[in-house]
Amino acid sequence: MSKKGLLVVISAPSGTGKDALIECLSQKAPDIFKSISATTREMRVGEKEGVDYYFTTKENFEKLIADEEVVEYTKYCNNYYGSPKAPIMENLEKGRDVVLKIEVEGAMNIRRMFPDSVLIFVLPPSIEELKKRLDKRGTEDECTIEKRMKRARTEVTYAGEYDYLVVNDDLSRAAEQLMDIIKAEKLKTFRNHDIIKSILVD
Amino acid sequence: MSKKGLLVVISAPSGTGKDALIECLSQKAPDIFKSISATTREMRVGEKEGVDYYFTTKENFEKLIADEEVVEYTKYCNNYYGSPKAPIMENLEKGRDVVLKIEVEGAMNIRRMFPDSVLIFVLPPSIEELKKRLDKRGTEDECTIEKRMKRARTEVTYAGEYDYLVVNDDLSRAAEQLMDIIKAEKLKTFRNHDIIKSILVD
Repeated sequence: MSKKGLLVVISAPSGTGKDALIECLSQKAPDIFKSISATTREMRVGEKEGVDYYFTTKENFEKLIADEEVVEYTKYCNNYYGSPKAPIMENLEKGRDVVLKIEVEGAMNIRRMFPDSVLIFVLPPSIEELKKRLDKRGTEDECTIEKRMKRARTEVTYAGEYDYLVVNDDLSRAAEQLMDIIKAEKLKTFRNHDIIKSILVD
Repeated sequence: MSKKGLLVVISAPSGTGKDALIECLSQKAPDIFKSISATTREMRVGEKEGVDYYFTTKENFEKLIADEEVVEYTKYCNNYYGSPKAPIMENLEKGRDVVLKIEVEGAMNIRRMFPDSVLIFVLPPSIEELKKRLDKRGTEDECTIEKRMKRARTEVTYAGEYDYLVVNDDLSRAAEQLMDIIKAEKLKTFRNHDIIKSILVD
């Protein structure tokens, strides 16, 4: 199979538990390449360089943008977030599926650049549940919880632009649903015209 | 959930093993309603009324057509094949998923009538394998194997019109793929706008 990998974009309001979800997906499907974003925001307690993010300076990030070395980026609460291009392209070319965890604006850009990508929006069970999770986290600094809540609502209005919706009420079940989507997408006819051709020339 | 069921259309050239595949799917997902086609062709050895088909007369079938009691029908080798409407509509309304096993022309009609339906084309591993299976079956009467082979090739050219392709080289694996497709389709955003709305009005 010289087929290209699938580019899967996952977005979710902060506090929806998307990090834990993607971690769970990685465990179920270790072959999937998890793109690590670069950011200029400060490292939170428990985060690790190259695992949660590549932490970098504003100057370095602006150089990445200028050199077109990020496939998308966004500025949020005065910090940059973006997806380094090279590892994504290399893995897709090798036929490995790539998961990108990005904000809604970035996702819309990916859709334009990669029309065959698969966009999944992860929803919290409810807005109340989201607020509870953000309150519990207690790691907020530059952005207040209120600001995040307002943003969460705005982000949810983008959910309609995505291909699939997954409600993260049960982590393992939600990860299974991500797997179902990825497996089904690989069976889409437009990704498999070669099979029809090979049968017809038999 | 007052949500409607999913209408899944499965087509495959004869000899691809679609009956065994749908049987396997039914075992894995007993909640799915398997629509039984009506036909005017003669019962083959081992077939059962109401299990494989509803066997009926030409006159009765033409009455079904006139009364619009079939959602689609086709004539093949001088026999009618069609899907009775009432059980399909009732099950979809109740929120139960419905699987329809139909020919390519019927599938194209279903697509027009039910734009939200999911069309899956099942392919044999190769045309040689298909011929082998038809030779082995040895139940052909009115239609020669050659005629079926020619039709199989024509049908495969329609595969590009379907949403998904499943290669039936391993029965259980192919049935799992059908399950993956059904599960993923239920997560499609356009089928779940109510979830977005319910979160936004929270």
